[in-house]
Amino acid sequence: MAKKTSVSPLAPAAFPALQPVEGVRFATVAAGVRYRGRDDVMLAQLDPGTVLAGVFTTSSTRAAPVLDCEEKIGGASEAGAVILVNSGNANAFTGGRGREAVSAITDAAARACDVPHARVFTSSTGVIGEPLPFDRITAHLDTLAKALSPDGIAAAARAIMTTDTFAKGAGATVDLGGKTVTISGIAKGSGMIAPDMATMLVYIFTDARIGQADLQDMVSRQNARTFNCITVDGDTSTSDTMLVAATGASGVDVTGDAGFEAALHKVMLDLAHQVVRDGEGATKFVEIRVSGAVNDKDARRHALSIANSPLVKTAIAGEDPNWGRVVMAVGKSGAEADRDQLSIRFGDVPVAEKGWVSPDYDEAAAARHMKEQSIFITVDIGLGEGAATVWTCDLTHGYIDINADYRS
Amino acid sequence: MAKKTSVSPLAPAAFPALQPVEGVRFATVAAGVRYRGRDDVMLAQLDPGTVLAGVFTTSSTRAAPVLDCEEKIGGASEAGAVILVNSGNANAFTGGRGREAVSAITDAAARACDVPHARVFTSSTGVIGEPLPFDRITAHLDTLAKALSPDGIAAAARAIMTTDTFAKGAGATVDLGGKTVTISGIAKGSGMIAPDMATMLVYIFTDARIGQADLQDMVSRQNARTFNCITVDGDTSTSDTMLVAATGASGVDVTGDAGFEAALHKVMLDLAHQVVRDGEGATKFVEIRVSGAVNDKDARRHALSIANSPLVKTAIAGEDPNWGRVVMAVGKSGAEADRDQLSIRFGDVPVAEKGWVSPDYDEAAAARHMKEQSIFITVDIGLGEGAATVWTCDLTHGYIDINADYRS
Repeated sequence: MAKKTSVSPLAPAAFPALQPVEGVRFATVAAGVRYRGRDDVMLAQLDPGTVLAGVFTTSSTRAAPVLDCEEKIGGASEAGAVILVNSGNANAFTGGRGREAVSAITDAAARACDVPHARVFTSSTGVIGEPLPFDRITAHLDTLAKALSPDGIAAAARAIMTTDTFAKGAGATVDLGGKTVTISGIAKGSGMIAPDMATMLVYIFTDARIGQADLQDMVSRQNARTFNCITVDGDTSTSDTMLVAATGASGVDVTGDAGFEAALHKVMLDLAHQVVRDGEGATKFVEIRVSGAVNDKDARRHALSIANSPLVKTAIAGEDPNWGRVVMAVGKSGAEADRDQLSIRFGDVPVAEKGWVSPDYDEAAAARHMKEQSIFITVDIGLGEGAATVWTCDLTHGYIDINADYRS
Repeated sequence: MAKKTSVSPLAPAAFPALQPVEGVRFATVAAGVRYRGRDDVMLAQLDPGTVLAGVFTTSSTRAAPVLDCEEKIGGASEAGAVILVNSGNANAFTGGRGREAVSAITDAAARACDVPHARVFTSSTGVIGEPLPFDRITAHLDTLAKALSPDGIAAAARAIMTTDTFAKGAGATVDLGGKTVTISGIAKGSGMIAPDMATMLVYIFTDARIGQADLQDMVSRQNARTFNCITVDGDTSTSDTMLVAATGASGVDVTGDAGFEAALHKVMLDLAHQVVRDGEGATKFVEIRVSGAVNDKDARRHALSIANSPLVKTAIAGEDPNWGRVVMAVGKSGAEADRDQLSIRFGDVPVAEKGWVSPDYDEAAAARHMKEQSIFITVDIGLGEGAATVWTCDLTHGYIDINADYRS
């Protein structure tokens, strides 16, 4: 089991005060799936009429609960829905027993909460390859259903943590036509998205009214600009799941509303950044902006090549303005680049221009920027209009400490 | 500069006793390009009639000497040729001054060694983005030309080292029609190593007789099975170069000869493995064999996804038989896989079969294998006949130490 004892130096000061979302109630319990002395199961019950959209890992070895959610997510129902999440065991790579566990938990949740099977969405996060002791979860479902409360979201954020060093939450409100629409979300994930214990799970709730297909479009579009733009180590979990639930209780229709979509974007980006800020061993939060690529897709390839390069990430850990490694990462990305058109800045400091060290390069100023906690690397490819921004963290001894430990 | 003080624990016991190759002479000198107190320039002169083949980095930001070699490599000439290599400065990302430096060095070498410009092949390795002080090299060319000796290959191997902790050499002889053909090669490289070749320079010499196109075919084919199957950190250098020179002095025509190609393969694989064994911070040599993929290309994607995964590499450093991370890496590779067909072995120990932990899994036996210096991970995708083998090393605190240092 990965150990992680102290809170990330990049953590926010406190868990935010999230607004309750009408039509959503939470309960948590210490079911003892694996951890002792802490809640490890959270139940969210969603009122009848709630619409759900989702995004899931594209891993070809994805876990049983993910496959089950994928099948159900497109469905619509006037009935209520529930989300049930356990930490401690990912129910991944568990063969036929994985499906049996999902089925047993879904049965129990549907019965306890009086919703159809097709409206029960489950996630599991923790060790992989061990059978999920699902009876420990099903035994608590009646208790959970009775304990539901509109104010339980902070406890829910804590119950889904694994190697996270802090609970993650973000919220927004939007005024639309004289009424207020609320968005409140939670996430877990630390380091990327490792199958061991660091899967990313995201649950966002809103009282907005919107159709399933419209919500899915919005969520997919904003996912591409937020969670799909973060990387800690380039590794991808078998269990990553994001669910967005819209209860409609505000009575405000947000179909095609730019203001609502902007607020949703803000909540998703905030949660995504918090996952990076809890990156295993992270000491620096890094924003990489690429412009001037032939197209946006190429810009993203360059940005991710920089963000995932061990040599770039260790240079940042060492507070070294090593732009040669950025050049290397652009060169290996596979996307189009011309060495003699490339310009690079660290913070506000131009380090390279048109393929060579900047004539005004001030190494002391670049070195000062590298000592900051938030690092900005800007690369202009100089070929076109394509742009992308991604976020990552540095690669430190802390990452090795956490991940080279023997599983106990 | 990265510091590296002790020899890799995975190094061979000694530099091999390489046979001189008729038609090839070497000289080295301490030109003070950057390092002090050691030779940093090597010259190899190749007799008239020598044929050269080459493989170069595909980086879009490749260095000036690489671009120059690429232009020249296809040419043929009855004249002799020279290879001139400096360490300490890569002459990469140096704009127009990079081309000027190549031109100045080429001029001086052509004059001192009496060969055409088109037959001077240069490489530079070391820091990126600083102008190469080429006058320090050109000042020594007459001295180098006078010092040429058939026995200088070991000194040449030392002169091209940068962060390498040991000089790398490999050789073979083949008996063909009662005559002996000799192959002797040297290489440098210890980080920034990934398919597409990476901060890696390789020079192989043989007295075989073969046409340029035939030699190039053979070299490209064997490169795909050797240097393009190793990775240390997934990062790719802007300077990778392999040159293979055939002097023809043995009089033995090896066109299409399987025995010669096998010997060339052996030398290339030996040098490639030595580069992995000098991987920055490496404590384990890792062979990853993937079979049962839909095709060879998919097998290679799976194998490289495993080999480049920081979570797999840190688990190996921690001597942890963490097959869950191997499943994760297969899942994220983008190549076809079916979780329920996957089987994994560590050494001879079956750990996972058909999508779940092996019924006979002996964790103690798997843990014993992980304590070896050479680790074997075998993955059967269970879908087809595609196969691939790649080699890598673990990811340790040593890698962070070496690469998170401030450039001095």
